[in-house]
Amino acid sequence: MSFLKEIRPLGERRNYSELLDLSSGDPHRGGIKPITFVRQVLAACFCPALLEDDSLPLDVKQRAKSLLRECDGGSVGSYTESSGIAKIKHCVSQFITRRDGGVPSSPDNIFIMSGSKTALMIILKLLIRSEDSCRTGVLIPVPTYASITMILEEEGAAIIPYHLCEEQGWTLQLEELHRVLQAARKTCNPVAFYICNPGNPTGHLQSRESIEEVIRFAAEERLFLLADEVYQSCVYGDNAEFYSYKKVLSEMGSNISSTVELASFNSASKGFMGECGFRGGYVELVNLDPAVMKYARTLFSTRSCPPVAGQIALDLMADPPKPGDPSFPTFSEEVQSIKNTIRKNTGRIQEVFAELPGISCQPLKAGFFVFPSLHFPPKAIKWAEKRQMEPDMLYCLHLLEETGLHVKPGCEYGQRKDSHHIRLFVGTQENIMEDALQRLKTFHTRFMKEFS
Amino acid sequence: MSFLKEIRPLGERRNYSELLDLSSGDPHRGGIKPITFVRQVLAACFCPALLEDDSLPLDVKQRAKSLLRECDGGSVGSYTESSGIAKIKHCVSQFITRRDGGVPSSPDNIFIMSGSKTALMIILKLLIRSEDSCRTGVLIPVPTYASITMILEEEGAAIIPYHLCEEQGWTLQLEELHRVLQAARKTCNPVAFYICNPGNPTGHLQSRESIEEVIRFAAEERLFLLADEVYQSCVYGDNAEFYSYKKVLSEMGSNISSTVELASFNSASKGFMGECGFRGGYVELVNLDPAVMKYARTLFSTRSCPPVAGQIALDLMADPPKPGDPSFPTFSEEVQSIKNTIRKNTGRIQEVFAELPGISCQPLKAGFFVFPSLHFPPKAIKWAEKRQMEPDMLYCLHLLEETGLHVKPGCEYGQRKDSHHIRLFVGTQENIMEDALQRLKTFHTRFMKEFS
Ligand SMILES: Cc1ncc(COP(=O)(O)O)c(C=O)c1O
Ligand SMILES: Cc1ncc(COP(=O)(O)O)c(C=O)c1O
Repeated sequence: MSFLKEIRPLGERRNYSELLDLSSGDPHRGGIKPITFVRQVLAACFCPALLEDDSLPLDVKQRAKSLLRECDGGSVGSYTESSGIAKIKHCVSQFITRRDGGVPSSPDNIFIMSGSKTALMIILKLLIRSEDSCRTGVLIPVPTYASITMILEEEGAAIIPYHLCEEQGWTLQLEELHRVLQAARKTCNPVAFYICNPGNPTGHLQSRESIEEVIRFAAEERLFLLADEVYQSCVYGDNAEFYSYKKVLSEMGSNISSTVELASFNSASKGFMGECGFRGGYVELVNLDPAVMKYARTLFSTRSCPPVAGQIALDLMADPPKPGDPSFPTFSEEVQSIKNTIRKNTGRIQEVFAELPGISCQPLKAGFFVFPSLHFPPKAIKWAEKRQMEPDMLYCLHLLEETGLHVKPGCEYGQRKDSHHIRLFVGTQENIMEDALQRLKTFHTRFMKEFS
Repeated sequence: MSFLKEIRPLGERRNYSELLDLSSGDPHRGGIKPITFVRQVLAACFCPALLEDDSLPLDVKQRAKSLLRECDGGSVGSYTESSGIAKIKHCVSQFITRRDGGVPSSPDNIFIMSGSKTALMIILKLLIRSEDSCRTGVLIPVPTYASITMILEEEGAAIIPYHLCEEQGWTLQLEELHRVLQAARKTCNPVAFYICNPGNPTGHLQSRESIEEVIRFAAEERLFLLADEVYQSCVYGDNAEFYSYKKVLSEMGSNISSTVELASFNSASKGFMGECGFRGGYVELVNLDPAVMKYARTLFSTRSCPPVAGQIALDLMADPPKPGDPSFPTFSEEVQSIKNTIRKNTGRIQEVFAELPGISCQPLKAGFFVFPSLHFPPKAIKWAEKRQMEPDMLYCLHLLEETGLHVKPGCEYGQRKDSHHIRLFVGTQENIMEDALQRLKTFHTRFMKEFS
């Protein structure tokens, strides 16, 4: 093919020195440094001999000692309660209360698990009945966090996709929700509504009004709300503010605030900490029917306890160093530097995209990803059709082959027919982001020229 | 009631100073000290600044560095492959090959999970079809590891209990297996056979011949073998030797060795390490039908990655310090001391039981527990009947109330009708075990006197 002169076939010699993987939301893989306080406390918990070490700050030692007191036998090697160490659940509930400006939170409704994904799997298992002749339906956005689709398929649920409106910055459209729900009621039994806010992959941040709309919709339609809020602390758009579903719900009048069932997820994998490998996440359950809550407790208690390192990460996330603590200056400097890095990265991404033909992106407000739209020339679409592949998938494969840059194609997250995207992780060191953008720019320019 | 003069009603004032919890298999809770090498490597992995520290032995630093090289971005905070870090799976497969005297093991068939229980749940999910009109059946021993029952109930499987023969040291009886299987075929579709060797709660260790019998039975009856071998390194009986199902299977003639499907489980929670809170376990899959193996890979990959601390613990378990390494002397001293402690504990347990009326115990060979039989006087049985409780449950509740010693009643593990047991954890410090035995002795003597 003439237009494949420069776009080499897959599998040919690569001409880049190093692979650059921005395909998943993993800050440390992207070169972001772990928070010193977090790692020092963990090291001291693993190896209490370090508590005698002069090099560790006093607050690190105090925190490690107080955490070890909560572990059976004073060891992080003991099993804990299957929903997590009581003191840590308490600490998380206080964090939630502070976050929501005083809305009460009870440790009894918090379940710590081996990552928020595990918590999500358990809540979905709770809601989905495979025995029923009429399948359980769950509404999920398009595009969506990809694992949710895999989990629903495994559990045998009917997937009810609702489209986010890209043109309006990936917002939810109430008419769309009603439309897909009415249609779905003919073939399945819709019981739950999943939303990811801030959005993966979209980078969208829901407004307070939008959240209210969703809650009212859930109330009217008797849907269980699954609010995936793992990116709640990654908010960087101008004037952007995160509202939790719990807080908005609590302010909505008691016929709604005391009835709509809600599961809200959070994680130590995201935010400034980015400790994905520790595996610590939690779900808070609100307004659950007592019978369902009882079944939830059974499901959680059948699981083994969450890893203690992940639990400790959640404790440190929920109760970080405060002004005056010896670790505070370094801690706040590190957190600020990560925030600055992400802000700079998203700025640079928008600059570069603005220069490139055939690529456009909604304003970036929050989360770990950008999800620009690629406007492929008809020749590129034909080229992909011939290969029976999605054009964005083929684009990503060639991008990887040619430049060593690994990003994900929009088709893995769902997208409107005839629209195409890539998903790019923004939580990397600035020099890595610059390198990635240069690779993308070179490849994209050549690609568009070849196919125009 | 007159015979309740001394056995006080539940809820009364307790007259012990400290709770003594021997209810679960958790060495650190029982006062066993963690292995220094394990904790030092983990501290250095979590806090690489320690790699500059002169106080850590050279092999600790080398191991931490080589593990960090396998982590994306050099951080234990990055996600890993969902089946575990490739190098660690390789290390585990070499450990298995050494354990089995050269029988090959491939990292491709090893799946590291957040504890062996998580691996067990996934394999059971793989085998159990909830859609079928005829329920999937799984054979499990009586008594059994209690979680297996909960998992099977959650997955909607039919539980097919087979009784172990206590009088012959908790051995498996082939006739019993055939009998229950034939009966079960009338009401469900038996597909799998679960066995725990060394046994929890029995402390039984299967002979090579018994394992061969089970494998032949599984071959004839086309059952998938689930070999829960998490206690494989806890063997302390005289002349006792652990044989893995994989090794025995491999030596059984190709019509069997290449056909019987086997899942073998192991864990960093047990053995000398006892790191339950890290959550590291694995399953090795053998002879799986390619279609089933494909589905297994899908199930494992839908899960999030196992915690990195648990993975590292498995690496250190599979490849511990060797003679000549700087950490070896301390390491082998610590391991030896734990083994001696358990040996002494089991010796003392048998001495004390021999003196006590109404209690008898099979010879102890392996595992983390003793499961003595309690021969209750008829009055005690009546007393429990009146309270609509199992006598051993009531015994344990009162033991706890009166003495602060927490052990588990046999009824939680299943037992023959009219037989009663308690389960006692043996992996504790010697002074703790002595304390526990004194409490048990005092309570038991009074109990038997009261009810005789
Ligand atoms: C939207 C969303 N939810 C949940 C998770 C799972 O996070 P974890 O299981 O590490 O807490 C992710 C991870 O990427 C995510 O993007
Ligand atoms: C027989 C048996 N299998 C599996 C497990 C689970 O161990 P883990 O999930 O900690 O690896 C246990 C724990 O007590 C056990 O006794």
